[in-house]
Amino acid sequence: MVVYPRGRCKCKDEGVKFIPPKQIEKIEVYPPSSSCQHMEIIATMKENGEAKCLNPESKFSKNFIKNAQQEKRILE
Amino acid sequence: MVVYPRGRCKCKDEGVKFIPPKQIEKIEVYPPSSSCQHMEIIATMKENGEAKCLNPESKFSKNFIKNAQQEKRILE
Repeated sequence: MVVYPRGRCKCKDEGVKFIPPKQIEKIEVYPPSSSCQHMEIIATMKENGEAKCLNPESKFSKNFIKNAQQEKRILE
Repeated sequence: MVVYPRGRCKCKDEGVKFIPPKQIEKIEVYPPSSSCQHMEIIATMKENGEAKCLNPESKFSKNFIKNAQQEKRILE
């Protein structure tokens, strides 16, 4: 669940470990900052624009950029 | 430079290879889609909220998530 209280972390829990890439419109990566001590990754779903927190420690999150680039090569 | 024409890529050029992480409020990663065949990464600058395109192929972009996580460990 994502909430946007001013000056605190955006994600209420550690987030999900995986979301099928095809369902993702974009991800937003928030580096650690004064308002939130840990990185947060928020995926926006294609279907309904819903925001979902992704666990930054999950293999999926870490490789998202690399995987999405491989997907580009498949599309070329 | 970032433009937001409907149904086309958001970045006009391949984007910069590096932005000092401390200057970045967040990055948005757009996987390849029907409207834009390649991945796009857009950084929002802390100072003025300006949007800057990051070259997805650059080492910096690929490692951004990993590096930002290491930064978290330094802050802990």
